[in-house]
This record gives sequence, structure tokens and C-alpha cells, in this order.
Amino acid sequence: MSSRSLPTIAILGGTGKEGPGLALRWASVGYPVIIGSRQLEKAQATAAALNTAQDQVTVQAMENGPAARQAAICVLTVVQAAHQAALEGLKADLQGKILVDATARVDFRDPRPPAPPSAARIAQEILGPGVRVVAAFQNAPAHTLKKNLGGALDTDVLVCADDLPAADQVIQLAQTAGMRAYYAGGLDNAIVVEGLTSILISLNQRYGVKTASIGVTGLEKQAA
Amino acid sequence: MSSRSLPTIAILGGTGKEGPGLALRWASVGYPVIIGSRQLEKAQATAAALNTAQDQVTVQAMENGPAARQAAICVLTVVQAAHQAALEGLKADLQGKILVDATARVDFRDPRPPAPPSAARIAQEILGPGVRVVAAFQNAPAHTLKKNLGGALDTDVLVCADDLPAADQVIQLAQTAGMRAYYAGGLDNAIVVEGLTSILISLNQRYGVKTASIGVTGLEKQAA
Repeated sequence: MSSRSLPTIAILGGTGKEGPGLALRWASVGYPVIIGSRQLEKAQATAAALNTAQDQVTVQAMENGPAARQAAICVLTVVQAAHQAALEGLKADLQGKILVDATARVDFRDPRPPAPPSAARIAQEILGPGVRVVAAFQNAPAHTLKKNLGGALDTDVLVCADDLPAADQVIQLAQTAGMRAYYAGGLDNAIVVEGLTSILISLNQRYGVKTASIGVTGLEKQAA
Repeated sequence: MSSRSLPTIAILGGTGKEGPGLALRWASVGYPVIIGSRQLEKAQATAAALNTAQDQVTVQAMENGPAARQAAICVLTVVQAAHQAALEGLKADLQGKILVDATARVDFRDPRPPAPPSAARIAQEILGPGVRVVAAFQNAPAHTLKKNLGGALDTDVLVCADDLPAADQVIQLAQTAGMRAYYAGGLDNAIVVEGLTSILISLNQRYGVKTASIGVTGLEKQAA
């Protein structure tokens, strides 16, 4: 077990589409991972499915509150409709932690881009200055996260935060999980990343695929 | 002259940073191009500079109104502060045309993402249903447009429009100018593309470059 020095990660609302894939990738490289849910039974079912499917992986299951308290880094993967209530209920449990807000704002039935403020800005306002909010993984492709565990994914993650050291920790977390990750500005910039879901839906529809993705290029320093 | 069958393109407000580069690229592949400005003298100065710098290129100069009336496709490259007044002044001249709105919404001194509606949606509302509004080129890199004329640029253009045939014409126009271009949804989606400027500014600052760019991947159809 080489995971002794790695921080514990809680995936809050981790029984949906996005959470289990992220849990798997981090658990597979040695992070202690807890699946959190409002209902312990749902968390246990998701954790059991992951542990059964993957020999090398052991994730725990808890209710969201205890999961948050036990973790150093909490990743919120609830749907938009549950976002505010989840944060209000977990405010005390999240103090002193990094909260990674992965909330997808776009409704597939009415896929128009969201208006500011960003979900992550709303989270920061609800949680107060004692929680280090970082926006990331809003567009991470749920269907590919579970493949090629331990290997690289062809995915760019745009990380937005007002707290730069917290952003750097999340960038490292994404990289450890096999994704490229870049600092893309403060919490307000996250509204653009949330809106990219609308662009990806349109690209997928127009080009008849499910794999449209947005990547970053041009970061190499060039002579003169 | 093989340009006889190509539509005339007017670059309205074409004396700024973005307009001349686009004008050059289209003129260099044979499109009749007119630089438009509120002041004829400014349009003439920009056109003269382009025609002097490039042997093979001849662009015309007119005031915005006559330029719009003579063109089939008009590309608006004004700054955000001039956007509404320019459209109101050109409403009559633009009827029946394609209006490509390239307005950059983000202010470099306060680079927060804009809120809906998108510039292109505002344009459609001002101009009415007789003008086919398409959003594109908001992030096209002004400094690279003038290089490698006739060759390919490593640039992806996200094209948003409610009018699909108009979008397809603009996609073709971008491709002819050496850029990759993709249909990225309706006019409301353009707010995300406008907001990408905020992301690019942050990426450039963080990574110490001026060349950050956003690209599309994953559009290849895959087996199963």
C-alpha cells in the first residue's frame, strides 16, 4: 500500500454518472476514496459495484457528511437541481477542505448555456471563505473515465479557482488520474467551462458522435 | 481572375485588429473583399496598407453602408462598445445578407466572461429576421491571420447560427481561409465562444504565452 501519504478524496453525490468514474481512477492509483451519498445504501451499492468490477480497487462508502469530514479533498458530482441544497447541508462538514465543484449546469432537454454566476461561485458564496472551492471535471467524459485505468485519457480539464494553490492540487489530481489539466482563471471563468457542455452537445448532434471534446493548444513557449 | 463566381465579402469596422487579417486571407484566395469603416479615409488607409504589403491582394475601401450593400456576406469586427450602434446604423443595408458577428465581448482590463444574450443574439434582434446572423471568428488570432497566406492555420473556429445553411457558408469561408471550422449550435451558444476569450487570457497569463487556443477533438466516428 503506497497510499499512506496521499490525501483522502470523497466523491459527494458520487452515485451518479460522473462520480464512480472519478472514484475508480483515483482509487486505481492509490488514493483512499470514499463514495458519498445522501443515502448510505446507495453509496454502498455503488462502492460494491466498483470494488467487484476492479480487482485492485477498494473504495469506501459513507453518507455525504461523514465522507466529507474524513476527506481532505471533496468532489461534488451532484446534478444542478441538487447543488444548492447539498452545499447548504454540508457547509459545516466542508470547512477547511478543498471542494471541487464538478456540477454540470446544462440540461440536456434544454441545452442552452447558463448565465453567471458559475456553480463554483455560488458554492463559494454558500460555503464561505473557510472552504477552498475549485471548479473542474464538469465535462469529463463519464463513459471513458472507467476505461484504461492507470493509463492516459485524451481529455483536457480546465481548472478554475481563485485559490491558486488549491487549483494546483486539483490539476495534480487530474494528472494523476491520466488527464491533462490547465489553470483557466478564477471561479467566474467556470461559467464558460459549464457552458462548453452546450457546445459539446451541439457538436455531437451535428457530427453524429458522442465523443466531442474541447482541448487546449498553443501553450508551448515559442522563440520570439 | 478566378474570383468571378465568389461572393463579395465586406469587413465592417474592418480597420481594427481582427478585420485586416481576415480580409487578407479571403482576398488572397480570390474573394472580392471590401474594407468598411465609418470613415472612408480610415478604410482607404487600411486597404492601402494591405495592398502594398501583399502583391497578390487587392481589397477595396468604402464606408460601412455602401460596403454592406455591395457584399453578399458581411463580417462585423467592431469592438463591443460599438456593436449596437453599428448594427442599428446598418440595419437597412444588411437586409438579405449574411452577417457574421465576430464581436469580442471580453474587456482585457476586466476579463470576466459575458452574460447572455450573446452578441450575435443581440444582432439578430436588432436586425430582424431578414438578416442571416452567424457568430464566428470571435477568438481568431489576429497576429497569425496575416502569416502563411494561402496556407493552413492551426485554428479551430466555432460557428454558431440558428440558420444552418448560413452557418455552412461561413464554415466554408473559414475553411477557404485555412482554418478548421465546426458548427457549434445556435446563436445562444455564441455566449460560450465569446467567454472563451476569458479562458484564453487566463491560460496565456498562467503559462506565459500569447498563443493559447481552444480546439475541437473527438469528432471522428468510431466503431461501436
